[in-house]
Amino acid sequence: MADARVLVLNAGSSTIKAAVLELGTGGSCNRLWQDQHPWTMPDASDGNPELNAAVHQCLASWLPAVLAPWRGSLTLVAHRVVHGGEGFSRACRIDAEVRRGIAAVSALAPLHNSVALAVIDWLETWLLPWQPDLSQWACFDTAFHSTLPPEQHTYALPAAWRQQGLRRYGFHGLNHQHVAETVNQLLGEEGQDPSQLLGLRLISAHLGAGCSLCAISQGRSVATTMGLTPLEGLVMGSRSGSVDPGLLLHLLQRQGLGPAELDHALNHQSGLLGLSELSSDMRQLRQAGAAGHPGSQLAIAVFTARLLEGIGAMAAVLRGVDVIALSGGIGQNDEQLAHDLHQQLQWLGRFRLLQIPADEEGQIARQCLQQIHSS
Amino acid sequence: MADARVLVLNAGSSTIKAAVLELGTGGSCNRLWQDQHPWTMPDASDGNPELNAAVHQCLASWLPAVLAPWRGSLTLVAHRVVHGGEGFSRACRIDAEVRRGIAAVSALAPLHNSVALAVIDWLETWLLPWQPDLSQWACFDTAFHSTLPPEQHTYALPAAWRQQGLRRYGFHGLNHQHVAETVNQLLGEEGQDPSQLLGLRLISAHLGAGCSLCAISQGRSVATTMGLTPLEGLVMGSRSGSVDPGLLLHLLQRQGLGPAELDHALNHQSGLLGLSELSSDMRQLRQAGAAGHPGSQLAIAVFTARLLEGIGAMAAVLRGVDVIALSGGIGQNDEQLAHDLHQQLQWLGRFRLLQIPADEEGQIARQCLQQIHSS
Repeated sequence: MADARVLVLNAGSSTIKAAVLELGTGGSCNRLWQDQHPWTMPDASDGNPELNAAVHQCLASWLPAVLAPWRGSLTLVAHRVVHGGEGFSRACRIDAEVRRGIAAVSALAPLHNSVALAVIDWLETWLLPWQPDLSQWACFDTAFHSTLPPEQHTYALPAAWRQQGLRRYGFHGLNHQHVAETVNQLLGEEGQDPSQLLGLRLISAHLGAGCSLCAISQGRSVATTMGLTPLEGLVMGSRSGSVDPGLLLHLLQRQGLGPAELDHALNHQSGLLGLSELSSDMRQLRQAGAAGHPGSQLAIAVFTARLLEGIGAMAAVLRGVDVIALSGGIGQNDEQLAHDLHQQLQWLGRFRLLQIPADEEGQIARQCLQQIHSS
Repeated sequence: MADARVLVLNAGSSTIKAAVLELGTGGSCNRLWQDQHPWTMPDASDGNPELNAAVHQCLASWLPAVLAPWRGSLTLVAHRVVHGGEGFSRACRIDAEVRRGIAAVSALAPLHNSVALAVIDWLETWLLPWQPDLSQWACFDTAFHSTLPPEQHTYALPAAWRQQGLRRYGFHGLNHQHVAETVNQLLGEEGQDPSQLLGLRLISAHLGAGCSLCAISQGRSVATTMGLTPLEGLVMGSRSGSVDPGLLLHLLQRQGLGPAELDHALNHQSGLLGLSELSSDMRQLRQAGAAGHPGSQLAIAVFTARLLEGIGAMAAVLRGVDVIALSGGIGQNDEQLAHDLHQQLQWLGRFRLLQIPADEEGQIARQCLQQIHSS
């Protein structure tokens, strides 16, 4: 089989990223082109027609021109889909049934999955007439966590809620898997024994605008900090991470706040931004903190404290740790953080601390091709 | 000073406990009498008059007869007050100002503090006429955690919320402090060097109907798992512990549940009870689990997994651990749990696992007497 050329679409809540990757049969992966476009997700209450219109408008004003050179030469189109629910544990070629499945999971991640479906629809209308045999694929940010054991994916909630699918799914799975594969490759290249690699206890820390940890054993996700939604766990750019559920009840019952206000504050006005009252960007907080800005110093201290505790929790699942891999905008670039973690985690004994550049697009392209080859 | 005789009142959400303790000048503590009375806390919506009436009715039908032998011979009366807010970091003699302070904190713990105030009121009316110089004291379950550093007591929330006092307070402080003092005493009696004791890294696990961990360094609380309310953290008898805040938003926004339904389900129908669909009592779950009941096995597995992760998180704060002390109904009695923890925490290196009987009443009596002596 010749080199494969994959168009990857990664639609997030504030940007849509597109890339064309060329994957060689020998495992090479070249990024031929990439671009991203900011967009504003409409409020949940505005409903799907408004969301579809906003996505289509964004894509129509951007992609036809920039993608023109690639039209006709693509092997497949691959999409990142945030939530695969309990049904999707691997990359899937999108047909009517898969599309229904993605839509059904939208009850759990209404905005994110609807955006992906809108992107898929638009490409079908715009790209497929040029190349009718071109297939579209979906890769799920939850799929890597389908190996979580019951004691890790079960919340201590009433059975009626659990039976509705309210469980931990975990996210950032595409990058956690990329990190796991990259670490394995690196250590293998260093000559580490394959049997030792199999027993490797790895904690992957995806630290970007969203942040999550994943405990990885034998290449599989065995615990993670995000849950039903990407709001749980670590402190993030503008997301609170875990807080006392009683705090939400207090705000609802005693302060008279509504669910929409809570949602907006916890997802968009909290985290590093809420603590610092300055920025959700760690680079800016490092500068301001060094210059004496108390809010930035507090934000960094709380972020780091929750991260250290999360690493301790993941180490408890793995019963120790051999490698901690930092990835994402903060993880792969913030040298101060890497230094602090290394120093404050000495109690864990001998471990390697690595910084691994995130590559969701490469992972997406590879997953689709693997599925094609194995089917 | 002669031996002191202290009447301790500990009003919880489902029982009111009373005990008379005799504390000797040499540190001895004898429980001369104890009793407890079940009662049903009215719903929050019923308001304070109904709550006062229910408390007074409970006490009037119970205490006059059983306390008659002690009337006139008491040194002081001491009350457990659940929430001390930011204002109370030690035991206080109750005067008009302290009473106003406890009432003010009721915005954060409406039911619990109101119950304590109702008990205080009733005793004033009933007991003080017999011994007008008898003082009443308040001891706070949050006070031990007043040493939490900012990165531990701060949630990553908007400043406007944080300024309302929405922070981690922590609970079970009376027993965590008792555990810390008992462990210190035990190790001292074994001949451990006082300077080593000062550096002791202790994790106290209070595991009863409510469950929380406390990381203790130099005898002070430096981290804990409960938060603004006693709902955060570990899986408990009927409380969920921490769950994805996005899960609450989902139930509110997509399922149309109201805050009161959420509150009831998370506090009373979750935890071991919600998981097992059988019981909130670990002894019953151990039996049913051994007999093959899947719900009980799941409940025990999730309870243990969250506990192990919490211990890992506390160890990260302490940068290792020397002693893990289990207390409370489950902690001090469940030998299977102690065995499992010991085995699954070997990765932490050398540590002692101790079981320490809880003694909130003794701690309450001692704290009040210490305040009297030091003032």
